[in-house]
Amino acid sequence: MSNKTAEVLCIGTELLLGEITNTNAQYLAQQLATLGISHFYQTVVGDNVSRIQKALAIAAGRSNLIITTGGLGPTADDLTTQTIAEFFDTPLVEHPEIWATIQARFAGREIPPSNRKQAFLPQGAEILPNPTGTAPGMIWEPKPGLVVMTFPGVPSELYVMWTETAIPWLQSHGWAAEPIWSRVLLYWGIGESALAERVDDLLQLANPTVAPYANYGQARLRITTRAPDRAAAMAIIQPIEAEILARTGDYCYGFDEDTLESVLGAQLRSRGQTLAVAESCTGGWLGQMITSVPGSSAYFMGGVVSYSNAAKIDLLGVSPRDLNQYGAVSSIVAEQMARGVKDKLATDWGVSITGIAGPGGGTESKPVGLVYIGLASPDGAVISFEHKISPSQDRNWIRRVSACFALNHLRKRFVMIFNTD
Amino acid sequence: MSNKTAEVLCIGTELLLGEITNTNAQYLAQQLATLGISHFYQTVVGDNVSRIQKALAIAAGRSNLIITTGGLGPTADDLTTQTIAEFFDTPLVEHPEIWATIQARFAGREIPPSNRKQAFLPQGAEILPNPTGTAPGMIWEPKPGLVVMTFPGVPSELYVMWTETAIPWLQSHGWAAEPIWSRVLLYWGIGESALAERVDDLLQLANPTVAPYANYGQARLRITTRAPDRAAAMAIIQPIEAEILARTGDYCYGFDEDTLESVLGAQLRSRGQTLAVAESCTGGWLGQMITSVPGSSAYFMGGVVSYSNAAKIDLLGVSPRDLNQYGAVSSIVAEQMARGVKDKLATDWGVSITGIAGPGGGTESKPVGLVYIGLASPDGAVISFEHKISPSQDRNWIRRVSACFALNHLRKRFVMIFNTD
Repeated sequence: MSNKTAEVLCIGTELLLGEITNTNAQYLAQQLATLGISHFYQTVVGDNVSRIQKALAIAAGRSNLIITTGGLGPTADDLTTQTIAEFFDTPLVEHPEIWATIQARFAGREIPPSNRKQAFLPQGAEILPNPTGTAPGMIWEPKPGLVVMTFPGVPSELYVMWTETAIPWLQSHGWAAEPIWSRVLLYWGIGESALAERVDDLLQLANPTVAPYANYGQARLRITTRAPDRAAAMAIIQPIEAEILARTGDYCYGFDEDTLESVLGAQLRSRGQTLAVAESCTGGWLGQMITSVPGSSAYFMGGVVSYSNAAKIDLLGVSPRDLNQYGAVSSIVAEQMARGVKDKLATDWGVSITGIAGPGGGTESKPVGLVYIGLASPDGAVISFEHKISPSQDRNWIRRVSACFALNHLRKRFVMIFNTD
Repeated sequence: MSNKTAEVLCIGTELLLGEITNTNAQYLAQQLATLGISHFYQTVVGDNVSRIQKALAIAAGRSNLIITTGGLGPTADDLTTQTIAEFFDTPLVEHPEIWATIQARFAGREIPPSNRKQAFLPQGAEILPNPTGTAPGMIWEPKPGLVVMTFPGVPSELYVMWTETAIPWLQSHGWAAEPIWSRVLLYWGIGESALAERVDDLLQLANPTVAPYANYGQARLRITTRAPDRAAAMAIIQPIEAEILARTGDYCYGFDEDTLESVLGAQLRSRGQTLAVAESCTGGWLGQMITSVPGSSAYFMGGVVSYSNAAKIDLLGVSPRDLNQYGAVSSIVAEQMARGVKDKLATDWGVSITGIAGPGGGTESKPVGLVYIGLASPDGAVISFEHKISPSQDRNWIRRVSACFALNHLRKRFVMIFNTD
C-alpha cells in the first residue's frame, strides 16, 4: 500500500446553498476506498476564486492527489481550471483537439463563444476525456508529489471519466496497490453501544479493524481489511466474523446489502412458503417494505390494513367482544389479526401489527409507542410480542420500527421452526 | 445581514468510505441559506483526533460559527466532544441533567457504561438538547467571536435539534438579522420546465424572487423575500403568489409543509367523509402515506393489499372472468378494486392502484410503469385513469409516484364534486 493520500474538493455554490446533494463526494469516497487509496478530507467550496485558492492551498499542503468536481462548464462562474492554473502560477494553453471535440459534439449547431474556454488547460496537463459531455477534465502534476484531477459536476459524466480514465491512470501510476475490503454485519433488536460492548476487545484489532455504527436505528458492525483480492481479504475477515457471530447470536440478521425484508423473502422462498399481513397503526408500511423486494409476489399474497375496528371485524374476523374488552391495541387482537389474515388469504404465515403511533391517542395504561406484533405460523401456533417504543420518537419512526420488529420476529420464528440460518 | 460566516464540519469515517450520503451537509446548507447566514466551506473528516483537530484549526481561522455533525455517540470512535475540548484546551465537566435524561431514556434497562461519556461537555458549553436520542450536542463559545455547535450524525435527531434549539439561538444572538421568508407552491402532474414556462416573466423578478425546483419528481415554485417579519414578507409575496396561482390552476395542490396526503385529509375532514384503499403493486405504500398524517383514523378506515389474484377475488370481489380476460393490470380491474374496497369497508370513497412496478413482469402491451388508478366516489361513479411512468425509473420510484397519482386524482375529484378548493 502507498502512503500517498487523496482528497476531494467539490466546487459549486449550489452545494453551499443546499440545492443538490453531494453524491459525487460519496461516489469518489467509495471508489477511493475500493482502490485502497487513503482519503482523509473532503471539502466543499463555492464558485469563488479566492476561496477556491485557499482550499487548494490547504489541500496541496496535506495530500498527494486532489480530485476536484465542478466548475468546468462554459459559464462565467465556472472557474476551476483557470483558478488551479493561477494557483500554481502556470499559463493556460489551448488544446485544438478539445476544441475539435466540442465542435463535433455541437454537430453544426451554433457554439456559444464561452465554450471556447473549455479547450484551455494549464501547460503540462493531460486531457481527461469526457465522452458524454463537452467539458473535459485534466490530470496534472503541478509539482513533484502532487497530482490534480478535475471532473465536471454532472455525476453521470464524472462516473464515465473516472471509470474509463482515472482508474487505469491511478493503477498504472502506483496509486492502487492494495484495496480495502469490508464486510458489514447487520443487526436488529440490539443498540449500537450494547453491541459494541459484546465485541469490545475486537474493536481494538489492527487488522482487520472492527467498527460499530448505527443507521436509522439499526446497529451495524463493519470488518475492514486491506488485501490484494477478495479471497485474501475474506481469509482475514472470516475468522473475526465467525467470532463476532458467536457472540452476537441471532441479533445479526444479515450482511452487506441485505435488508430485513430481503432476508425474510429469501427464507420464505427457500421453503416455498407464503405470507400475508394485517396492519393497523403502520397503515401499509409493512406491506410496502415486503413488496419493495423485486419478485416478492412469489411469497407475499397481500394483506389487510385494518385501520378501523370495523375493518378488523369484517375483514379479519376479530372478535367484537375482545375488541371491546381488551381494546384494539392488545395482544389478543394482534393474535386474532394474524390468524385472520393467514386464514383469509390461505397463507403459511400471517403477521400483524397493532399499536399507538401517536402523537395523540395514548393513555396511561396504553401509551404512545405501545405496539403488539402477532404471528401465526405454519404449525398453527399464534403468538404475540409486546414492544414499548420510546414515545419521544415521532409517529413515522414508531411506525417504521414497528414494521421492522414484525419482520424480525418472522425471521427469528422461521429459523426456530425450521432450524435453519 | 451579518458579516459573520458559518461553516460545516462533518465528522465520520463512514462518510470518507462513501457508506452514507452526506445529507446533513445539504440540510444545514439549506437552513443557513434560509436564515441568511453566509456559509463558504464544508469539510468532511474521519473519526481521527489529529485530523479533527487540524480541521478545527482551519475552520476556527476563517469562520465564526463551526457546526459539526457526527461523533457524539457512546462508542470509542465517537471523538467529537473531547477533541473539541482538547483543541481549545478546556476541561470536560459532567452534566448530571444529561445523565438523568439518558437514564430516563433507558427506562430501567441496563445502560452501557460507555453512554456515560455523553454527559460530559467542555466547561462553559451549553447543552443543545436532543429530544429524540441519547447524545445531546452543545453550543459553546470557546473564544470571543467563535461559536461551536455540535450535532449527532443521525439526520432525524439533527433536524429536531436544529429546529427547536439552534434556530432560536441564532436568531436571538444576532446571526439572522433580516431573515429570508419563503412561500413554496407545491405541484403535482406538471414538470419543472413546463411550470417554469408558465411563469417565465416572474422568474426575472428581483423582489420577491421566484425560483422553480423539483424534489423527488414534484415541481415546486419558491417565492422568496427578505423582511423583518412575517407580515411584511407576506405583503411582498402575496400578489405574486396570486398571479402564479391564476396561471397554474389546479396543478398546485398545496403550500409549504403540505403534502398530497395532508391536503386530501383536510378535504375529507371538511365533509366528514371516509376513505378506503385497495393496492396491488404499491403493496401498502398508499395506505402508509395516508396514515402518516396524525389523526387520519378520522377518515381512513383501512384497505386491502391485494398482491395476489386470490386476494383481489376473495377480499375485493373482483370478477375472476375479468381478471382472466383483461389481466390484473387493467382499467376494469382497477375500477372493481376501488368499488370493492369502498363497499367492503362502507366508506364514501374507494381508491385503487394496480400496475407493473418492475423490474420484471413487463410485456410489450403492458410494459413496466403501466399503472391504473381506480376511483369510486360518493355519488356512485367509478372511474379509472391510466398512467405510463417511465420504465427507466426504479421499482420504488414507480410505486411512490403511483401512490401520489392516486392521492392527486382523489384530491381533484373531491374539488370537482364539491366545487371547493
